[in-house]
Amino acid sequence: MIEKKELIEQVNSMAEFNKWCGIKVLSATDGAVEIQIEWRKEMGQYSGFLHAGLIGTLIDTACGFAAATMAGTKLLASNFSVNCLRPAIGERFIARARVVKPGKQQIFTACDLFAVSEGEEKLVANGETLLCVI
Amino acid sequence: MIEKKELIEQVNSMAEFNKWCGIKVLSATDGAVEIQIEWRKEMGQYSGFLHAGLIGTLIDTACGFAAATMAGTKLLASNFSVNCLRPAIGERFIARARVVKPGKQQIFTACDLFAVSEGEEKLVANGETLLCVI
Amino acid sequence: MIEKKELIEQVNSMAEFNKWCGIKVLSATDGAVEIQIEWRKEMGQYSGFLHAGLIGTLIDTACGFAAATMAGTKLLASNFSVNCLRPAIGERFIARARVVKPGKQQIFTACDLFAVSEGEEKLVANGETLLCVI
Amino acid sequence: MIEKKELIEQVNSMAEFNKWCGIKVLSATDGAVEIQIEWRKEMGQYSGFLHAGLIGTLIDTACGFAAATMAGTKLLASNFSVNCLRPAIGERFIARARVVKPGKQQIFTACDLFAVSEGEEKLVANGETLLCVI
Repeated sequence: MIEKKELIEQVNSMAEFNKWCGIKVLSATDGAVEIQIEWRKEMGQYSGFLHAGLIGTLIDTACGFAAATMAGTKLLASNFSVNCLRPAIGERFIARARVVKPGKQQIFTACDLFAVSEGEEKLVANGETLLCVI
Repeated sequence: MIEKKELIEQVNSMAEFNKWCGIKVLSATDGAVEIQIEWRKEMGQYSGFLHAGLIGTLIDTACGFAAATMAGTKLLASNFSVNCLRPAIGERFIARARVVKPGKQQIFTACDLFAVSEGEEKLVANGETLLCVI
Repeated sequence: MIEKKELIEQVNSMAEFNKWCGIKVLSATDGAVEIQIEWRKEMGQYSGFLHAGLIGTLIDTACGFAAATMAGTKLLASNFSVNCLRPAIGERFIARARVVKPGKQQIFTACDLFAVSEGEEKLVANGETLLCVI
Repeated sequence: MIEKKELIEQVNSMAEFNKWCGIKVLSATDGAVEIQIEWRKEMGQYSGFLHAGLIGTLIDTACGFAAATMAGTKLLASNFSVNCLRPAIGERFIARARVVKPGKQQIFTACDLFAVSEGEEKLVANGETLLCVI
């Protein structure tokens, strides 16, 4: 599965905003990807939690990567949806995405987002992305 | 309506990530808000378009601001959903959000996102946010 | 525009569940469709309002019809989303759908659902459907 | 857990449209509910598959029941979203819903929908419902 991880790391390195976020690919297998960011103060919304836009960034990015492990990189996100379940507070955030249904024209994916504080993980958001194969 | 705009600008200035994005409040009236960012290279996804995470950021932020003009700032986004209609390419991006249905417990909002190139606006995404009054 | 209406009425007549619902096509032009049902007691949820499943039925059906006016009938709904804005109480319900963005592979649509009571219309739900061209 | 099942069966019996659908409660425990319908021809869309509106009905209903096992019946669906993963063809359809995050004001739920043919289950749709505690 090293090849899949290398593929995803390569795509990740091509996106300027992913670099700004400091997105790190933790694992990538067939249909499942795990990415991580470290919390930085400039990522905050008005109460100092992780901004919902960055929650969406992690979910959409992990979902896209999960799809790419099965369908390559000729993909575009059509729709993504995010549930903010709890305040997103932590030292690190890990997004775990999976392909729910691969298809020739479209790929359904889903993702859970965890905040990590003092070694403990907490589910803070989930979401899904529908990708179109171009 | 200057008061509403001042309120929204104040909230906007409290969010570190909004500052990084360079979000500017163009207008804010009862139930309707317009915000803008200037394109920067570090905002790109792997093809150089505006990253879907930032599309989501603009939509969620404009929706939250629209809700705040009617319900104040004790609000949290519960769910937001984004449709990526066209490649988000432009010099500037303007998000126009409106309250669809205000309520005591929850507020339904919707938003259109336009890319501006050489003075022309093009709809590139839309979305909605459901906010919970806390 | 009579042709479009005839096309949509034909598709409508082919669906058994549409018949049970009593869905009537009020109008169909390029990218916009209006359908209606009459309230019947057997359509109720546990409080006697229109069941959310039937709210979804009307929104998904009207959206599919709006897409069909532009792309024909080789379409499948990939995702649909519904906001229940107010209790759906009325003598009749009218769903007004429009194509937001047509495409070769996928079509984005949106819909408003109105309850009609004593001649007055009230927005009770809205939603959207993403269709895949097969 | 018999009590929970009785509570859900009671709510189910109060909804006229659930009766028309022939919704049967298979199981109901704390935060998880399973319901079933038998296929009938009048449930079809234009190709004879289960109508997307009924897919939504099963997902929304099962999600609402799952929420009711934890929060009682003073609940209203705010938003529900459905992914149509495969053509919904089968002799029976089983929806399995779970509470993802219970809260004082809102409850996040999710659901998988399976078609059963000749004893075999196939995932044909999934979705989620956000409920508001009233």
